[in-house]
Amino acid sequence: MGLASETQKTEGWESIKALVGKMRTKVTEFPGKIKKLGQDDPRRIVHSLKVGLAITLVSLFYYFDPLYVGFGSSAMWAVLTVVVVFEFSVGATLGKGLNRGLATFLAGSLGFGAHHLATLPGEKFQPILLGFFVFLLATTVSFIRFFPRMKARYDYGLVIFILTFCLISVSGYRDEEVLELAHKRVSTILIGGFTALFVCIFICPVWAGDDLHNLAANNIEKLANFLEEFGDEYFKESGDRESNKASLQGYKSVLNSKQNEESLVNFARWEPRHGRFRFRHPWKQYQKIGSLTRHCAYRVEALNGYLNSDVKASVETRGKIKEACMKLSSESGKALNELALAVRTMTQPPSECPHIAKSKNAANSLKSLLKTGLCKDIDLQEIVAVATVASLLLDVLSCTEKISESVHELASLARFKGVEDDQVADGEKKLNQKGEVNNKSCSNSIEQPNHHVITID
Amino acid sequence: MGLASETQKTEGWESIKALVGKMRTKVTEFPGKIKKLGQDDPRRIVHSLKVGLAITLVSLFYYFDPLYVGFGSSAMWAVLTVVVVFEFSVGATLGKGLNRGLATFLAGSLGFGAHHLATLPGEKFQPILLGFFVFLLATTVSFIRFFPRMKARYDYGLVIFILTFCLISVSGYRDEEVLELAHKRVSTILIGGFTALFVCIFICPVWAGDDLHNLAANNIEKLANFLEEFGDEYFKESGDRESNKASLQGYKSVLNSKQNEESLVNFARWEPRHGRFRFRHPWKQYQKIGSLTRHCAYRVEALNGYLNSDVKASVETRGKIKEACMKLSSESGKALNELALAVRTMTQPPSECPHIAKSKNAANSLKSLLKTGLCKDIDLQEIVAVATVASLLLDVLSCTEKISESVHELASLARFKGVEDDQVADGEKKLNQKGEVNNKSCSNSIEQPNHHVITID
Repeated sequence: MGLASETQKTEGWESIKALVGKMRTKVTEFPGKIKKLGQDDPRRIVHSLKVGLAITLVSLFYYFDPLYVGFGSSAMWAVLTVVVVFEFSVGATLGKGLNRGLATFLAGSLGFGAHHLATLPGEKFQPILLGFFVFLLATTVSFIRFFPRMKARYDYGLVIFILTFCLISVSGYRDEEVLELAHKRVSTILIGGFTALFVCIFICPVWAGDDLHNLAANNIEKLANFLEEFGDEYFKESGDRESNKASLQGYKSVLNSKQNEESLVNFARWEPRHGRFRFRHPWKQYQKIGSLTRHCAYRVEALNGYLNSDVKASVETRGKIKEACMKLSSESGKALNELALAVRTMTQPPSECPHIAKSKNAANSLKSLLKTGLCKDIDLQEIVAVATVASLLLDVLSCTEKISESVHELASLARFKGVEDDQVADGEKKLNQKGEVNNKSCSNSIEQPNHHVITID
Repeated sequence: MGLASETQKTEGWESIKALVGKMRTKVTEFPGKIKKLGQDDPRRIVHSLKVGLAITLVSLFYYFDPLYVGFGSSAMWAVLTVVVVFEFSVGATLGKGLNRGLATFLAGSLGFGAHHLATLPGEKFQPILLGFFVFLLATTVSFIRFFPRMKARYDYGLVIFILTFCLISVSGYRDEEVLELAHKRVSTILIGGFTALFVCIFICPVWAGDDLHNLAANNIEKLANFLEEFGDEYFKESGDRESNKASLQGYKSVLNSKQNEESLVNFARWEPRHGRFRFRHPWKQYQKIGSLTRHCAYRVEALNGYLNSDVKASVETRGKIKEACMKLSSESGKALNELALAVRTMTQPPSECPHIAKSKNAANSLKSLLKTGLCKDIDLQEIVAVATVASLLLDVLSCTEKISESVHELASLARFKGVEDDQVADGEKKLNQKGEVNNKSCSNSIEQPNHHVITID
């Protein structure tokens, strides 16, 4: 018994020690994590400071007597609004602010009407009538929140609508000065909303539109980088692999980019014209490009499987289609990189992309290689792996063409600036410079691509 | 000129007419949309009624004098809490409620401390000190919100933390009865939170855990359905296709299921034990299964491309590997269906799945078919398409095995009830019954799968 309790004690000590050790590593890792979070996107630090500033500004209300006397305890709605409305991007803040403002105004009027209506039949029925109104409105609006379109753009407004209606109509039962209450609430919310918007827009603004635009370009570029490297990697001697695999995994984030893209589109649609983006910029088109990019990414994911596959054709077999495959892969990659650059710099992509033409040539020679029987006498299973890769690459080419089409559509919808045809031939330098300029201007985008500068040959 | 203005007038009329027509179709379509939304998931209607009920309940505070006198205008925090905290699933509501309650308590205490600290150096410095505290806290907490882990589980709590701290510390500058204010705020929030939780849990609860569990099973089942039909569809005569294509597109939703799954996992982790799920059910394992399922879905997406591909091998070529491919595809499908059933009914899947064994056999015969040169004399390009399909199917098989492994892991972690080995052989009837029972119990899940009942042969 004594021994057992002794052992238990030691075990207890051990587990406490382990826990302390774990805590210690967590604590020591913490500053590193903070630093990484800030380095990954310095806008996060700026955003935090902006939130602090906006809240401090609006809480001045309480410190200065003349302001405080005007609004009394309603001033807290201003603080509340800033805390709740202030979001990372301008679009999100604007969307939330407009939702909150409009919903408060509408629900306030409706609540006042309901309050007035409920007083008509006499004091006895008032609570019952008010309860009925509240139940009816809360149920209806809660159901409306399930409509996908409403959910995407007006969800917050609908919540605030229920909230304000209840507060105004119900507290009106006590407070006879409903109108004054409603007026104060609306004006303090306006003050809070404007403070948040002012700080959000005029101090280092973060535009959701910019992020969306960069996301589209980055995603295309990630696929391009994979394809440009894939050929080398696949046809390398087995021993040399493994080394720079990490650079080939960049495309993985494209696979799950849908939700992020959707919310960015919703935010961007709230934003006014800014920078390179006109009012009514065709944000929806980015969703189309995004879905085609993901479609291509699924093929790339399958290709990636063959890099690590056990069934690997012999060097000899692979050698026969090596040239065509490498050409096809790298030219598709270059075409995509060019499209990414066109999106990034907002220049019209050349109507006849030389890289797509080249990869089509490679595709044709690959097809004819396959047709003439690249190797009739050897093990077919070996060919299968190679043939699959070839076939997937052909697939990728057709995806690339579709992406190219949709980027052209975007270019015409958003009136990208044109590049003179004769400039294309000898415009290498110019585009390089543009790429570099752009490289600087978007150096604080969330996902820093590996390289922006692509030479057009 | 007159003619021109006439034309303009007519055009104006036309456009107004078109607009009215558009509005009319939207209005006439609206009831249908509402009906569909309710039919897709009747829990939505129940949820809306529950929200209405909870808000009406909590607004009773205002109607009854004894309750109102106790809390005064602080009673509005109860209404506010119900509106903001009440979510669709129990997990989400619990998470938000706990976040709100805990954050309010902590920030209230801290705010009171800050208020007390700021009074020490004298009245002149008080506003400056308070402003500094507010700025510091708001900035820090805003930055903490960027940590992915904090964002996933405590985002709402962090917002409420900033909010309450500002309200308490700042309004405390005016109101000497800070403690009373804090006390009232905390207790009204508790009342609101408990009302929301009570209605949410005890009236037709919606458990995020159930949804997550069904999502995992449904996703596996969708892939299974595709694979079971794929063979027939691919080896059909070209003319007969197109007909039942819709049934093959079910898997598409699996591709983008990641975000939904993640939020369900976060919600489910807040939930207490319920129904078939113990406390500390291994929810994280569902994420693992989900990611493997998506991995398989990417292969299925590539396979689907070959159903509509232009490059199609001749009937003769396809005929040679038809049997092995169909067997491989349908047996993989059956294996997945069995795994889905095991997850759904929470029974231990048989340790040696007969379908996986059968598909391994088919895979071997397919491989040897490819090895012995299924057709040395004909066009290789034709074979390529077929070979790719074969190769993708082999890939799918290895995905299936991985999914099977992770489901077994889940079964042992969550202690699924075992099926006696001798029952497996002749247990067809029993499992069928279980499947049917389950079919009823989860008949109101969001995504109704096509069929739950699978015979085990």
